[in-house]
Amino acid sequence: MPPEYGINKGRDLWLAELTRSPMETWHLARGFRFAGIHCGIRPDPDRLDLALLVSDHPASAAGVFTQNRVSAAPVQISKKRLPRADARAIVISSGNANACTGKQGLQDAVQMAQFAALGLDCKPEQILVCSTGVIGRRLPMEKIEPGIGQAVHHLTPQSEGLEKAATAILTTDTRIKVATRQVSLGGKTITLTGIAKGAAMIGPNMATMLAFVLTDAAVAPADLDEIATRAARNSFNCISVEGHTSTNDSLIFMANGPEPHLVEDDLGRFEDEAIAVCKELARAIASDAEGASHLITLEVEGLRTDLEAHRVAKAVADSPLVKTAFYGADPNWGRIISAAGYSGVMFDESDLSLYIGNYLLYDRGTPKAFDEKQVSDFIRDHRELTVRLVFHLGSCRCTFFTCDLTTEYVRLNADYTT
Amino acid sequence: MPPEYGINKGRDLWLAELTRSPMETWHLARGFRFAGIHCGIRPDPDRLDLALLVSDHPASAAGVFTQNRVSAAPVQISKKRLPRADARAIVISSGNANACTGKQGLQDAVQMAQFAALGLDCKPEQILVCSTGVIGRRLPMEKIEPGIGQAVHHLTPQSEGLEKAATAILTTDTRIKVATRQVSLGGKTITLTGIAKGAAMIGPNMATMLAFVLTDAAVAPADLDEIATRAARNSFNCISVEGHTSTNDSLIFMANGPEPHLVEDDLGRFEDEAIAVCKELARAIASDAEGASHLITLEVEGLRTDLEAHRVAKAVADSPLVKTAFYGADPNWGRIISAAGYSGVMFDESDLSLYIGNYLLYDRGTPKAFDEKQVSDFIRDHRELTVRLVFHLGSCRCTFFTCDLTTEYVRLNADYTT
Repeated sequence: MPPEYGINKGRDLWLAELTRSPMETWHLARGFRFAGIHCGIRPDPDRLDLALLVSDHPASAAGVFTQNRVSAAPVQISKKRLPRADARAIVISSGNANACTGKQGLQDAVQMAQFAALGLDCKPEQILVCSTGVIGRRLPMEKIEPGIGQAVHHLTPQSEGLEKAATAILTTDTRIKVATRQVSLGGKTITLTGIAKGAAMIGPNMATMLAFVLTDAAVAPADLDEIATRAARNSFNCISVEGHTSTNDSLIFMANGPEPHLVEDDLGRFEDEAIAVCKELARAIASDAEGASHLITLEVEGLRTDLEAHRVAKAVADSPLVKTAFYGADPNWGRIISAAGYSGVMFDESDLSLYIGNYLLYDRGTPKAFDEKQVSDFIRDHRELTVRLVFHLGSCRCTFFTCDLTTEYVRLNADYTT
Repeated sequence: MPPEYGINKGRDLWLAELTRSPMETWHLARGFRFAGIHCGIRPDPDRLDLALLVSDHPASAAGVFTQNRVSAAPVQISKKRLPRADARAIVISSGNANACTGKQGLQDAVQMAQFAALGLDCKPEQILVCSTGVIGRRLPMEKIEPGIGQAVHHLTPQSEGLEKAATAILTTDTRIKVATRQVSLGGKTITLTGIAKGAAMIGPNMATMLAFVLTDAAVAPADLDEIATRAARNSFNCISVEGHTSTNDSLIFMANGPEPHLVEDDLGRFEDEAIAVCKELARAIASDAEGASHLITLEVEGLRTDLEAHRVAKAVADSPLVKTAFYGADPNWGRIISAAGYSGVMFDESDLSLYIGNYLLYDRGTPKAFDEKQVSDFIRDHRELTVRLVFHLGSCRCTFFTCDLTTEYVRLNADYTT
């Protein structure tokens, strides 16, 4: 066997080809400033590891956090502080998750917020705090204290600042994830600016990884709270890298527009845009999954409830056998059908048909003859693939993003802390 | 980074060193004959692909089968026929799962039993049928018909026959799995002879993969049925390779001793032995998992129910992040704690301590200082490792076997059908 599949050439090629929206097209929410700096959590002086997102005046804020029973110290602190009407900033460290760090970790998270409050001249409770990286190590507070001072000094409302903040929150991601939107509501142009990081330990439950959406809309904290929950359910909860729910998952919204708050139709339109931003970030996370060479969109249709469709999608998305088959450009559809079979959703084989791209491989319980080489080539040649599982039991559905499982993923994760 | 971890050298060394019990020490249940032959399901003429296990007279038989909603044709047929009092044989093909094959697949499974019934001069209903291999392809019946005739011709009660049968049921397993026991019950020596196959698509739910336990004890079909269920729960349901529940999982017991049936204490002692045989086979499957270089025994203790302990164990056992860390000899214990955290079991961090071998890494919610290199070397140097998750919530527990996730697993599974 060759040392590596030809498909990996594809991966490198595809990674190089992937374009991101140029900075000049980003829409920046008014009244926010951004910074990303290197403070020394990571040894490499070229790697940014501390980000600061600041609203110039008190903002509504809401969040959705990991459902893992073991949640990181910053999650425990930020969760208690949300929703609220007077948030000022989010401070984020990368390279160290501050998770499983006991009481010391909680003290450190509280202190991180205090340092930021000092620099921004506000109360510590107005600061939200997030971390991502290795679990079980104490935060280097002696580096974080001067780092936060430095970040405050570098704050800017320009794209350059956002780019640095979006870079500083990354771990093994290969590129930044930025999604922005503008919409006119009640005669005013409203902007939403979102950033996220993903890469691994992606198995969402309520929220996943780190994502921040800043907007200059005026939204009441309670409304923002509901919107955050629904946005997570429709975006970050519909992606998987390996199905491992992280200890640090956090999605935080900040809305700093002057009152009156959005209501009714305008609030609904704002929510649509907020979900669109989150979906774009979620898809970018699945696309940039650790070691992945394929982004696979699962379209699960025709079930009795959306939850059933989500369950089937998640079982297929998390299966290492499904994911390795795509890595090998192997149209081994039996693995997809059998994963659906153990999802816990009731169905008979005759209720189910399966497509990879436009190739119908399984038709209501009966396998279809197909040219294996042709479908294998199709998989090999397409970085982005759509797999459709069509049930005949109802009209509910789910779109879910996942990726393949590669030898590169195993290498990266066999070698992450040591 | 080197092309491959040094640990893989360990794997090859360990695989070579692994001994199996020599044939002369196997205990063979009386009144059974065995055969394993090559009939042509697999292209390689040296690979056996058809096995036959025959009781000389009608036997009690019971089984436990996959809970996957998509079950293979042979599972559907055998399930209907069990439990029963007059079983004669199990016919098993490997290389083709006869799963997701529609009505044609059901006809083929029925016909496989008919061919065997013809050769053994009994009714088709007395034959149980199993298959394992690639999903979604039609069985080559033109090869299976003469193959069964050939297998009948080769039946023998000797160890050589059992070895060939144990070989013929394998897929990507690197070695056969045989476990035997003898026990004296009511003045008679009773023998249990078990064989199994595993390797991948191992994510048990009620039963997993293929396993067969033959005994010359006299056990009523209803008792055997209960014993099979409890044995599966305590053995095959406590292992995982990648957590993918197969379409073909089957565990079948045959007991052909002359009446009177075992009762009370003797039946209880028989059950203990039956569970011991199944545990030994289950452990052998985890140890010979596709591409694995470590066998990891998870001891989860101190929970409120055995089911809770099982849930925690399964979440940890299935996590690709935990498994890749062991592959890299990386004592990244945060991944283990965080997997326990999303298992769905309620606990606080301060309820949990964690050991790898005798190294205490996490003590009731607080990380312990340890020498990373020392623990990494310990992992690297031991093919078999024990990980203990000690809760302080009750007295229930679970022992669970899993393995690491290696680049070799990904390679094998990226390249299985094409």
